[in-house]
Amino acid sequence: MRVLGIDPGIAIVGFGFIDKQGHKLVPVQYGSIQTESTTDSAVRLQEIYEATVHLIDKYKPDSMAIEKLFFNKNVTTALTVGQARGVLMLAAVQKGIPIAEYTPLQVKQAIVGYGKAEKKQVQEMVRMFLKLSAVPKPDDVADALAIAICHAHSAGLQQKLNGVGKQ
Amino acid sequence: MRVLGIDPGIAIVGFGFIDKQGHKLVPVQYGSIQTESTTDSAVRLQEIYEATVHLIDKYKPDSMAIEKLFFNKNVTTALTVGQARGVLMLAAVQKGIPIAEYTPLQVKQAIVGYGKAEKKQVQEMVRMFLKLSAVPKPDDVADALAIAICHAHSAGLQQKLNGVGKQ
Repeated sequence: MRVLGIDPGIAIVGFGFIDKQGHKLVPVQYGSIQTESTTDSAVRLQEIYEATVHLIDKYKPDSMAIEKLFFNKNVTTALTVGQARGVLMLAAVQKGIPIAEYTPLQVKQAIVGYGKAEKKQVQEMVRMFLKLSAVPKPDDVADALAIAICHAHSAGLQQKLNGVGKQ
Repeated sequence: MRVLGIDPGIAIVGFGFIDKQGHKLVPVQYGSIQTESTTDSAVRLQEIYEATVHLIDKYKPDSMAIEKLFFNKNVTTALTVGQARGVLMLAAVQKGIPIAEYTPLQVKQAIVGYGKAEKKQVQEMVRMFLKLSAVPKPDDVADALAIAICHAHSAGLQQKLNGVGKQ
């Protein structure tokens, strides 16, 4: 099962593709889509959309996981992030890829085991889970991988539960 | 000059195409794109995107005008409206249509003459400007037409200013 994790934004979209092979999580490709603040905002959305379509076509994920809510951010930030999130979700649905949404709390619980974990703890756990030599930069990339891992864990658990239900 | 005015939302997107013919404003087509709350949110975004692409192809506007900020709304609403706004802006930029943004204050000032105008006053002025027999429903449609009129006025003023500058 291949998961695409996304940390949405207008200046930086973090992305991470990981494969779940049995109990192992294998990083496939990760990085960021970055747009210039001097570029018109509609054009930035187009750049994000086109880069995402390209990534989906190239790495063919089975599902996409994206951060759900932004409790600590203000209304203007939420609107801007929402716009980016809209074109990211559009790219996925057009390619027939199911989208899972997780709150930051759920991601922290899945990765570190409790919801009040520090950002650095989450990043270090991401590095260990994926056997990386260093934490990926910028933070948005590590966050995207964290969301992907959260979904891979949840999806695994869901499969087990379904398995139990079928017996 | 043909303007497409948009009042963005996830459940209802109001739209209105108007033509500016000299000093006259002529309504071309107006209505709403509506999505079901029981539908998956990514699919709702896809429905909005596809309906907008269809409308742009059919009515070929020269520009799009859209509401800018949502001071009175909460973070969750801003995120949701932002997602819809993102796919609406994407549809326009993909078709090479320039996007103008206006705050609710600017729209009220352009339509009624002062920024604290009541919603009903704005709607009644929209009806009069476009010589309609009744205020279009739902409110989102009247709001979309108000934004289109605001842009038609501003663009006209801009042309006059440019004209003065060239003399």
